[in-house]
Amino acid sequence: MPDVSPTKWHLAHSSWFFETFLLGPHLAGYTIHDPIYGFLFNSYYETVGQRWARPERGLLSRPSLDDVHAYRAHVDAAMGRLISEAEDWTAMAPLLELGLHHEQQHQELILMDIKHVFSLNPLSPAYAASPPKALTPASPLTFTRFKGGLIQIGHDGAEFAFDNESPSHKVWLEPFAIANRLTTCEEYLAFVEDGGYARPEFWLSEGWAAVNREGWTAPLYWRQDDDGQRFVFTLTGQHPLDPAEPVCHLSFFEADAFARWAGKRLPTEAEWELASHTAASPVSMASAQTCHPQAAAPTSGLQQMHAELWQWTSSAYAPYPRYRPAAGAIGEYNGKFMSGQMVLRGSACVTPEGHARSTYRNFFPPAARWAFSGVRLADDA
Amino acid sequence: MPDVSPTKWHLAHSSWFFETFLLGPHLAGYTIHDPIYGFLFNSYYETVGQRWARPERGLLSRPSLDDVHAYRAHVDAAMGRLISEAEDWTAMAPLLELGLHHEQQHQELILMDIKHVFSLNPLSPAYAASPPKALTPASPLTFTRFKGGLIQIGHDGAEFAFDNESPSHKVWLEPFAIANRLTTCEEYLAFVEDGGYARPEFWLSEGWAAVNREGWTAPLYWRQDDDGQRFVFTLTGQHPLDPAEPVCHLSFFEADAFARWAGKRLPTEAEWELASHTAASPVSMASAQTCHPQAAAPTSGLQQMHAELWQWTSSAYAPYPRYRPAAGAIGEYNGKFMSGQMVLRGSACVTPEGHARSTYRNFFPPAARWAFSGVRLADDA
Amino acid sequence: MPDVSPTKWHLAHSSWFFETFLLGPHLAGYTIHDPIYGFLFNSYYETVGQRWARPERGLLSRPSLDDVHAYRAHVDAAMGRLISEAEDWTAMAPLLELGLHHEQQHQELILMDIKHVFSLNPLSPAYAASPPKALTPASPLTFTRFKGGLIQIGHDGAEFAFDNESPSHKVWLEPFAIANRLTTCEEYLAFVEDGGYARPEFWLSEGWAAVNREGWTAPLYWRQDDDGQRFVFTLTGQHPLDPAEPVCHLSFFEADAFARWAGKRLPTEAEWELASHTAASPVSMASAQTCHPQAAAPTSGLQQMHAELWQWTSSAYAPYPRYRPAAGAIGEYNGKFMSGQMVLRGSACVTPEGHARSTYRNFFPPAARWAFSGVRLADDA
Amino acid sequence: MPDVSPTKWHLAHSSWFFETFLLGPHLAGYTIHDPIYGFLFNSYYETVGQRWARPERGLLSRPSLDDVHAYRAHVDAAMGRLISEAEDWTAMAPLLELGLHHEQQHQELILMDIKHVFSLNPLSPAYAASPPKALTPASPLTFTRFKGGLIQIGHDGAEFAFDNESPSHKVWLEPFAIANRLTTCEEYLAFVEDGGYARPEFWLSEGWAAVNREGWTAPLYWRQDDDGQRFVFTLTGQHPLDPAEPVCHLSFFEADAFARWAGKRLPTEAEWELASHTAASPVSMASAQTCHPQAAAPTSGLQQMHAELWQWTSSAYAPYPRYRPAAGAIGEYNGKFMSGQMVLRGSACVTPEGHARSTYRNFFPPAARWAFSGVRLADDA
Repeated sequence: MPDVSPTKWHLAHSSWFFETFLLGPHLAGYTIHDPIYGFLFNSYYETVGQRWARPERGLLSRPSLDDVHAYRAHVDAAMGRLISEAEDWTAMAPLLELGLHHEQQHQELILMDIKHVFSLNPLSPAYAASPPKALTPASPLTFTRFKGGLIQIGHDGAEFAFDNESPSHKVWLEPFAIANRLTTCEEYLAFVEDGGYARPEFWLSEGWAAVNREGWTAPLYWRQDDDGQRFVFTLTGQHPLDPAEPVCHLSFFEADAFARWAGKRLPTEAEWELASHTAASPVSMASAQTCHPQAAAPTSGLQQMHAELWQWTSSAYAPYPRYRPAAGAIGEYNGKFMSGQMVLRGSACVTPEGHARSTYRNFFPPAARWAFSGVRLADDA
Repeated sequence: MPDVSPTKWHLAHSSWFFETFLLGPHLAGYTIHDPIYGFLFNSYYETVGQRWARPERGLLSRPSLDDVHAYRAHVDAAMGRLISEAEDWTAMAPLLELGLHHEQQHQELILMDIKHVFSLNPLSPAYAASPPKALTPASPLTFTRFKGGLIQIGHDGAEFAFDNESPSHKVWLEPFAIANRLTTCEEYLAFVEDGGYARPEFWLSEGWAAVNREGWTAPLYWRQDDDGQRFVFTLTGQHPLDPAEPVCHLSFFEADAFARWAGKRLPTEAEWELASHTAASPVSMASAQTCHPQAAAPTSGLQQMHAELWQWTSSAYAPYPRYRPAAGAIGEYNGKFMSGQMVLRGSACVTPEGHARSTYRNFFPPAARWAFSGVRLADDA
Repeated sequence: MPDVSPTKWHLAHSSWFFETFLLGPHLAGYTIHDPIYGFLFNSYYETVGQRWARPERGLLSRPSLDDVHAYRAHVDAAMGRLISEAEDWTAMAPLLELGLHHEQQHQELILMDIKHVFSLNPLSPAYAASPPKALTPASPLTFTRFKGGLIQIGHDGAEFAFDNESPSHKVWLEPFAIANRLTTCEEYLAFVEDGGYARPEFWLSEGWAAVNREGWTAPLYWRQDDDGQRFVFTLTGQHPLDPAEPVCHLSFFEADAFARWAGKRLPTEAEWELASHTAASPVSMASAQTCHPQAAAPTSGLQQMHAELWQWTSSAYAPYPRYRPAAGAIGEYNGKFMSGQMVLRGSACVTPEGHARSTYRNFFPPAARWAFSGVRLADDA
Repeated sequence: MPDVSPTKWHLAHSSWFFETFLLGPHLAGYTIHDPIYGFLFNSYYETVGQRWARPERGLLSRPSLDDVHAYRAHVDAAMGRLISEAEDWTAMAPLLELGLHHEQQHQELILMDIKHVFSLNPLSPAYAASPPKALTPASPLTFTRFKGGLIQIGHDGAEFAFDNESPSHKVWLEPFAIANRLTTCEEYLAFVEDGGYARPEFWLSEGWAAVNREGWTAPLYWRQDDDGQRFVFTLTGQHPLDPAEPVCHLSFFEADAFARWAGKRLPTEAEWELASHTAASPVSMASAQTCHPQAAAPTSGLQQMHAELWQWTSSAYAPYPRYRPAAGAIGEYNGKFMSGQMVLRGSACVTPEGHARSTYRNFFPPAARWAFSGVRLADDA
């Protein structure tokens, strides 16, 4: 899978980010650890220079993991010095904050990538121990109505947000309804067993092409033995499919086809954001611990808006009105990916604590399935 | 080019449309001309059955052009009978109207496809005679301001429109400005000569990948001889680049990169539609005759909104709020293409007369260049 | 299929050969018909200049068939003049003879290519009328022994032969036996029905990869309906499989796997050539007329050495000892293809009369199936 | 590079060979270490069962190197037991010998693969320390004549040889001459600087396609800095090009084109084998130590027949007359690769001691360059 990188690459890359954008420009007397690392561990910043091609990252048997740890220690020590010695934080503070949030994104990517590589391994390795699990039914599916109108979305305030969450702006919404929880495996299985992957009438044209090209017949990590019993591969190993769990590792195309089959649709990102203001969304410790989403608890109100699965919206990833990327290489962080991708909202069980926001805009190509993505249905009202 | 079809295929396909959706269901005693034609000339209607793969259309040395003309005559005669004998037009009228508009779309596609095939031919064949041409300067570039606010866009009324233009709905717009005419070759050439195709900072990430993968250094039909002089291949043959002409056969990625280089942006489709209501847009006979856009006349107001070139917008092609595709195969006409494409507005010199509307939504993938596409700049106000 | 060219291309190419190698250098005052044709209709002569890529030949809607006929008439007239006026034939005679044999090769290629294109067409067009056919059994399969030893193979003499058939040279052969006729469809069907295409033990590694990559389950033009009945597509249309007919349109890999399954092997080209001297090989008029091989007659001796199907040998296509290609572009005719191909011996029902020789070395890549190729078994003795 | 495997894979695979062909069938009470290893570490034995695809080997982050060492220890212990307890060696002795020679082949492959992966790494890691090196001129190039005739080649005797070296058989050879040493970098550089990679007249058609597709302009590990100085990447790091060293890491196509440019040709494998009987071929300790070939010493007679570089021949890899592969999975060892490959003779500086023979037939596809391959010229006499 060309999108997947080795864990040591992620570790070196997040170190490189601090070195390139903070230590190099701002720490007097800082020595670049190894100039060639800039070539190896730049992910996509064209402005910063040439870089090592993403699908080739797996070929780098050198530097070794020990070398990368040494690199990290070198950067950590210098960052400590920079922080204790800095006097003028005007330029540095936003970069430091960005570097920390960037590292959190890679913490999630590491888990996504490990899961993908382990899933291909016939040994089915487990990343974490699997605690005993009580099977509980999911709470009933209901829809909450919102009257819409001229609302305001997007980030506005002093706290950190990525540039793509701004500016805050007005959007007109027709009345709509949104599901109280994520779609479950049981609900999705009904779609599968109703021939969902063999009936073109539910699919976007590109989605139908993907189904046939890739041979999809179920979500990414679903498996079936010769007797027809279904399993799910997770970071704690392979388990029988739990009907009450949220279905995960879907592409946008699958989420959209499922919604069409169900007679519903996906929410727009504005609808999702408006609805999220009414939700409590306590974090499930069990989900974070097992790196796997848990069934929704039988409480009232909107649940699972955060900390279970990213939720596909029907919104193409595009700049907000009057959006301006930052100047220089940092401006490449988000803006240049604003084509060919769909927005996901919320956060996942593998998202680091403190990294979630109601205005957060995650994005992936519509055929991507290795993110922790799920479905929340919506409808016109 | 897998998107290009032979002319005889287009002719058979538009005949098949009438046969399949009108004659078969509605004309008593109609005999299908040849059952296998349904397989050969179905373009993408999954619901209607299997079909011949698009990139293989060029392989069909049979049926011959004579056979296809016989097919057309058979369908024409039966359509005459259907129209003269029909009593209840409720179900048929919308299908007949759709069939006619569908055929108009293929008339434009035929010219796009002939141009592409001729452009690859070292003999540089011409489709139409080239009249003498007086080189006139383009009118100066100015921007017209609109105050935006809560506006209404989309089709509403009794006249024909495709389903994707409905429902009419509210959109909030910030104040904006839009260019009075299309971008000229001279303006685009400045971008090219400023290294536009070699500077990643202007490009979306996918666009930059396309530039490098495809080796783009100029719009699709631009050519350059060994002395550096530039030419444009057109349906009347190859001509020296006319600086005042609108630049055409650009991908969305090029249009977007050019706008960024110019310090502007592309309009959204709602902005374009709002602005179009203030434009006179008389059709240029010279453009229609030569199948090539002409320089803008030095008149005031918005020009070239129609009948010169389709105009890329910054809007991803998506359903309007509360959009519902028609039931059955006709529902595949537009809805299922609503991913991975960008909207173009206006119409082109090769668009049949009477086919243009201010609410019309054309769409192509962002890397497509063989449509008659151009650029109209916009800006925040 | 990238190897297939339109008929008009073959016609223009064989004309170009005469123009380039005879008229241009040898006819005083000859005017090149159209300089760009040299680019369009050069097949692979690197020394002669750039050329139009083979897989793109189908794109050339111009020059039209009428234009190509005019080109041919121009070349024919000039060739008439050259022949009647020439005084010194030393340099010209070999080129003229080569041009004629070259054209014969393209006559066969035209039939191969038409068959392939027609086979892909759901209309199943026929190239020639299909005469009534009496089903007769094939003669019994027997093996003729040869004692081998130090023999001489290759062309030696005044008559025309391609350069790759020379020099005549010594080869040591162990005693061997060779089949009296070609393998029949019935014999090959037994291999198919014994799971031949699903059992890796019979296949070369590259062949097994081809089976799986291409999804081969039978020879190229074999078909099977829903009831399991088998048919063969031919230039006279589709017919039920005739068990007694020679099996044709096999790759080398299939021929080799079949031989292994049968407990035999393919002959080397030296074995085939030695054996051919003992065969009568009268030409079957029925095969030439229907462009399809006929069942072997029940006569004694080696049959079907010529005029039915080319016969795969186990010999890689390589230069004979002391082989020297001609100087200049003509030297590219054969020599540069001497890698990655296997030799076929004999001739086929679509080979023009007078084009066959016992020393003739035909060659194709081991996975090619669109030539009129068959199997003659051999064995150690 | 899909042909390259991780070192731990080679280690596990050679262990698996002993487990599968010796311990499983012959050691009473042997327990398979881990049944899934048979799937992971089977290289190409179709008869033994499904296997993990070669290009995916790099994805196996599990089993870890420690796990593979444990596997090896388990197999070693069991092999010790098998050897000390065995009574009837009839079936086992050939398998044990084959397993040891198989492991030697993988020892060489490990060095080939490490070199390839290191060469792609911008850090240019070194596998072995680089001793000081005295630049000495190569001995002059001369040719030794052989009168040929009816000779005998192939393995015959009690010592170990692979099955593809048998049976010993007669071959007729015309008189020929063969170079006294390998082609040097200086000689090859003259070809490069004479435009060798840009002149199609020297290349086989497939070779010319490879040159253009792959962008070859020099042997695999040659490099050139901005000043035009040339270097070679080796297992002891990057060094300036030594003119006297044998040129290495050439494809067959490059070896063949070079020979044509030089007015010579490559030897057949029979010519090489006949000549090798007259050579002393002492092993160069320096070459083995640095894993890199050394300049030929100025002694008389044929040099560098062994222990420097494998030498491309003009012979396609094919079965010897009356060759029969062994029954069962062991029969897949050599026979099924007998298409699409060319024979190399001799042995290389990375070939384990005791693994070389005058009858040894190494083979690679004609475009492969990562083996330690070189050129020895030949000529007609």
